[in-house]
Amino acid sequence: MHPLDTAISLDQLSKGSYRAHTSAAYANMVGPFGGVTSALLLNAVMRHEDKLGDPISLTVNFAAPVADGEILVEAQPVRTNRSTQHWLMQATQNDEVVAFATAVTAVRRETWSAHEALPPRDAPDPLTLARMDTTDKPVWTQCYDMRYMDGDMPAQPGGAGEPDGEEQNHSYSCLWVRDEPPRPLDFVSLSAICDSYFPRIFIRRQRRLPIGTISMTTYFHADTAMLSAQGEQFLLATAKALNFRNGYFDQTAEVWSADRQLLASTHQMVYFRD
Amino acid sequence: MHPLDTAISLDQLSKGSYRAHTSAAYANMVGPFGGVTSALLLNAVMRHEDKLGDPISLTVNFAAPVADGEILVEAQPVRTNRSTQHWLMQATQNDEVVAFATAVTAVRRETWSAHEALPPRDAPDPLTLARMDTTDKPVWTQCYDMRYMDGDMPAQPGGAGEPDGEEQNHSYSCLWVRDEPPRPLDFVSLSAICDSYFPRIFIRRQRRLPIGTISMTTYFHADTAMLSAQGEQFLLATAKALNFRNGYFDQTAEVWSADRQLLASTHQMVYFRD
Repeated sequence: MHPLDTAISLDQLSKGSYRAHTSAAYANMVGPFGGVTSALLLNAVMRHEDKLGDPISLTVNFAAPVADGEILVEAQPVRTNRSTQHWLMQATQNDEVVAFATAVTAVRRETWSAHEALPPRDAPDPLTLARMDTTDKPVWTQCYDMRYMDGDMPAQPGGAGEPDGEEQNHSYSCLWVRDEPPRPLDFVSLSAICDSYFPRIFIRRQRRLPIGTISMTTYFHADTAMLSAQGEQFLLATAKALNFRNGYFDQTAEVWSADRQLLASTHQMVYFRD
Repeated sequence: MHPLDTAISLDQLSKGSYRAHTSAAYANMVGPFGGVTSALLLNAVMRHEDKLGDPISLTVNFAAPVADGEILVEAQPVRTNRSTQHWLMQATQNDEVVAFATAVTAVRRETWSAHEALPPRDAPDPLTLARMDTTDKPVWTQCYDMRYMDGDMPAQPGGAGEPDGEEQNHSYSCLWVRDEPPRPLDFVSLSAICDSYFPRIFIRRQRRLPIGTISMTTYFHADTAMLSAQGEQFLLATAKALNFRNGYFDQTAEVWSADRQLLASTHQMVYFRD
């Protein structure tokens, strides 16, 4: 069983109600990597017998730190229409909400389609790039093979790496990323990958600060067939911020397939302390 | 009383529970303009006596068409931390959910701050531009003074305007916008303005199609003081899409103050039929 599938595994208690458990492989500085919490909440929808279609949007609110241990996960369809379905999900520990989420799933029909955003140009073959060193980074980074072209995470101050760098005037990153070990892409793994970019303030200020994502939204531009076509290949990803102000900044990212189709776009607001 | 304040007015039934009513001034093709539904749900938080701080993020799911008439609006704090608070809101008609939302409010502290996104350059003084003609457009557009520099809504096919234009290779719009009549900016009016851009597919394809926003997220980069400083001045706004595929497209927009500070960034997924 792939470590991601272990981490998002759900033991059904009743319709829409599941028991889950945090996974040591995806540990972050405090509690689990947020991407796995997102994937867990989405998985509760994917597993639900009443689910209609594929995920279109997912918003996760990280309400409190998730403690290592058991999590009660619930998903309920709030409204089901002819081709769309609206979901509310929550994760609780000791009867307190630690994360909650909304999602829309829908049956897609074939229509006029067009791209507008363009993928990053001139990205070299990922196999010609070095895998990011995870030595001084949180445990969950070992669950991804990340190959940065731009904007790798700065070394830990006082750690084995270099000292703090100079502040940059941007926070742009561009990388190839896939699950490690490789795993065929699906909606849950894609939702986790959408949170796998380092906080933009680390890149902008070239140092690590206390941060926490408070809310994250992911839009799925791909359907099941497109994700299946991607398989275990590397995804091409970019991330940047628009604004950092008084304790909060945003992060916006795009995830492209190996053949340069936009699979997901994702946004989050992040708390920071300086 | 300003028409927006009438449209989002809440008659408190009990703590966090309110009765509201749709407003003819903000009528859309079917039901009310989605921006006013967003503002109504956010207003239920703003009015709540337990609210902590200012809005940071807001996600609204448009679950079903809102019928003209009475709406029951509820807001509850799901989790309150030291400086952040997570909210769940819903709007129901005849005991069925028509819209639901999550929000985060927070007490901001002064920190290192920086911008990364840049406002559109060379925007002429709004008073030198013509106000958009609302003749063949939904009623709610009369509640805004919109002055387009790029990407105005195409004329209605077969209407008084020109025939369908040629499809464009982008959906970018840039405009000045404010409430009409003028109203001092606050979080609720800003949340409505974040939905006031015409659907990107209208711009891209240069014709109007059946569409409906399914989920919309707004990030507030400004605090109360910044919004107060803006007052009744025009806001500078841009909108674009990343991708249109099989029934859904995204829209991403930025709202800038008259003095070129980023006040909000906003994203939505929109259903379309062709």
